Amino acid sequence: MAEPKRVVIVGGGFGGLACARALDGTDAAVTLLDRHNYHLFTPLLYQVATALLDPSDIAFPLRRAFRKSPNVRFRQATVTGVDLDARTVRTHAGDEIGYDTLVLATGGTNNYFGNAPLAEHSIGMKTLPEAMRLRNHVLSCLEEAEQTREADERRTWLTFVVVGGGPTGVEYAGALDELLDLVVGRDYPSLKRSDARIVLVEGLDRLLGAFHPKLGRYAEETLRRFGIEVRTQALVEKADDSSVTLRSGETIHARTIVWSAGVRPSDPLNGAPRARSKRLEADEYLRLRGRDEVFVIGDAASVATPKGELPMLSPPAMQEGRYVARAINTGRSTKPFHYLDKGTMATIGRHAAVADVRGVKLKGILGWLAWLFVHIYYLIGFRNRVAVLASWGWNYFLRDRPIRLIVRGDPDPLADEIDRG
Amino acid sequence: MAEPKRVVIVGGGFGGLACARALDGTDAAVTLLDRHNYHLFTPLLYQVATALLDPSDIAFPLRRAFRKSPNVRFRQATVTGVDLDARTVRTHAGDEIGYDTLVLATGGTNNYFGNAPLAEHSIGMKTLPEAMRLRNHVLSCLEEAEQTREADERRTWLTFVVVGGGPTGVEYAGALDELLDLVVGRDYPSLKRSDARIVLVEGLDRLLGAFHPKLGRYAEETLRRFGIEVRTQALVEKADDSSVTLRSGETIHARTIVWSAGVRPSDPLNGAPRARSKRLEADEYLRLRGRDEVFVIGDAASVATPKGELPMLSPPAMQEGRYVARAINTGRSTKPFHYLDKGTMATIGRHAAVADVRGVKLKGILGWLAWLFVHIYYLIGFRNRVAVLASWGWNYFLRDRPIRLIVRGDPDPLADEIDRG
Repeated sequence: MAEPKRVVIVGGGFGGLACARALDGTDAAVTLLDRHNYHLFTPLLYQVATALLDPSDIAFPLRRAFRKSPNVRFRQATVTGVDLDARTVRTHAGDEIGYDTLVLATGGTNNYFGNAPLAEHSIGMKTLPEAMRLRNHVLSCLEEAEQTREADERRTWLTFVVVGGGPTGVEYAGALDELLDLVVGRDYPSLKRSDARIVLVEGLDRLLGAFHPKLGRYAEETLRRFGIEVRTQALVEKADDSSVTLRSGETIHARTIVWSAGVRPSDPLNGAPRARSKRLEADEYLRLRGRDEVFVIGDAASVATPKGELPMLSPPAMQEGRYVARAINTGRSTKPFHYLDKGTMATIGRHAAVADVRGVKLKGILGWLAWLFVHIYYLIGFRNRVAVLASWGWNYFLRDRPIRLIVRGDPDPLADEIDRG
Repeated sequence: MAEPKRVVIVGGGFGGLACARALDGTDAAVTLLDRHNYHLFTPLLYQVATALLDPSDIAFPLRRAFRKSPNVRFRQATVTGVDLDARTVRTHAGDEIGYDTLVLATGGTNNYFGNAPLAEHSIGMKTLPEAMRLRNHVLSCLEEAEQTREADERRTWLTFVVVGGGPTGVEYAGALDELLDLVVGRDYPSLKRSDARIVLVEGLDRLLGAFHPKLGRYAEETLRRFGIEVRTQALVEKADDSSVTLRSGETIHARTIVWSAGVRPSDPLNGAPRARSKRLEADEYLRLRGRDEVFVIGDAASVATPKGELPMLSPPAMQEGRYVARAINTGRSTKPFHYLDKGTMATIGRHAAVADVRGVKLKGILGWLAWLFVHIYYLIGFRNRVAVLASWGWNYFLRDRPIRLIVRGDPDPLADEIDRG
């Protein structure tokens, strides 16, 4: 009997997880690596950041996902390098893991376009520790605002600038608005709702650039109706700890800057072929150009289509992961990868969402119901789904955000070494 | 109309919260201060530390508790000093808050009896950040153990020393044992349950010193039956990052030391009268000796009874808080404070707990049911109760710990300044 093929998958996000699941039960000996011990359901990260969901509601332990698998093993490790010729990956602990086939699904990270002060003074929305930080930060701003007697200073604590008008920025702005409605004046009786401002800053001329213009306009109108200030064709020039200056010259005094304006790919390769986007260049079979035994998928990979590069979203990553699993399983590349666009959606607030599903454009309560259904359906694991539904029901009917805690774990040298947040 | 009496309560634990609640709706103008923005249900902290409950299940936002109160205001602040003559408290932000009546309910903190290496190398069980750290740490030890090929080293990662055989130590040891049963061999297929050790170290000659000796013996037998090693009359002499040495000379190689062996009072007073325990001396009306307008309650206060000082537990703190509220409300001290001992209880594991209720001693499944009932009953807030019940049901029927995440929030300068963990 031949030795089983050693497959190493780097990254337990949507792409890597889909690939590992599709290889579960096959002949391959699969090792799945991730720097965290959980898969993160990133589409709901903004709800952790706005005190609606617990971190454990959207994070699923990867070991548990493969507990019953005969051939998939998870290992928590940060991959620091790959030797493509020797066919090994190197971990932060100095281990070398050999592979016959490598799947790079290492995702992306915040892109500040080289603006270091912006990186320093803003809070990202890509990881669970970032979302927990944002929750702690916003609640702390409300505490500070209540203890401040000076009106201008109070308004600065109560001004929240969200940079980036894609789905993450729009969803976060809408959810933050709802949080402020729920707690300002109630939990913080001396604060006035009208003293709080949310400013959404977008570089393009409209929100939700990846959606049909009609839906982008609807999102903008809805957010404005909530009282959120929307600045399109606006770029952030500089930032410090109490203000943001736009290229137009406008200065917004704020203690909170949320960054959702850019993602760049993140991978451990040196000198590999890259697209203009810096993503690793994938051929039509999703192989790293020039390396038949290395597949690249998800945000880290540039997959060209007639309409341009596939966007950094979970549906392409998942389809790519399953395609690669099939290729590994059959031992030969079959048809070139083809992406089936099932649509995109974003929620804006209570009873308001947009969905662009195979040409059908939904908005308002219909879009919202579609969003609800799809997100419950795709949430991994039965328990998370139940817990999320319970929190959503609580929020919907009682208009209350349950998790208004300012808390984070104490530092632990071992855990901080293992989990590289 | 006379000005309302300004009452400042420092500390939102069991004592301070009971006092503030009993003053809710009265004529007093109450300010409740706490360094955290939540009340913590500490009896269930060990369940957060063992990945059974989410932090938000046992932490209740203090602002929410008084959202509808006409006269109780919460403010997140750390009190750094009290000027007893000027009748003001000073906060970390430099504010001075005046009072007519002061209630000090500042609780306690870990006591390492001056052993700095022990403090450095062990993890406490008093605060939510500590419990979250302990969860992250133990799960990280399992990750390390699986990646280690050397057998001795692996056993060191899998050895957990719990110092202190009171309720916290016993409950944590039992819950950790159950966690290891559930995940070692399942989530970590290459680890053997028999490689993992839990050692419970107690200085006295038996566990649960505050309970009837029969119950302490039952707890010890039950833990031994689980396979936990119990060392009584054992003191920790020294510790480093991979071992603990007992006074007997025995060295235990371990990467985890949990400290539940001592609590010392914590308060912002200088030169106040103190008992031998260092707790602030309370007179029979719970006033700080010599200061009629200052009340001291809970772990911070030494309340003498014919049987000795009242223990550092939540029931005395709550009764003291309500007594003080009554005294403030009626404007005069009525009868001296009298503590009604309703009993104590501790859970050991599935279907095993001890309860000592007004002379009735329960153990086994009866004690466990009593424990369950009392803890659900006393858990503050409807939502927390539902969430806790759901998690317990999940754990009980599916034998699964849902929250096996290694994660903590990113540092945030503002939140870290406001919340002094």
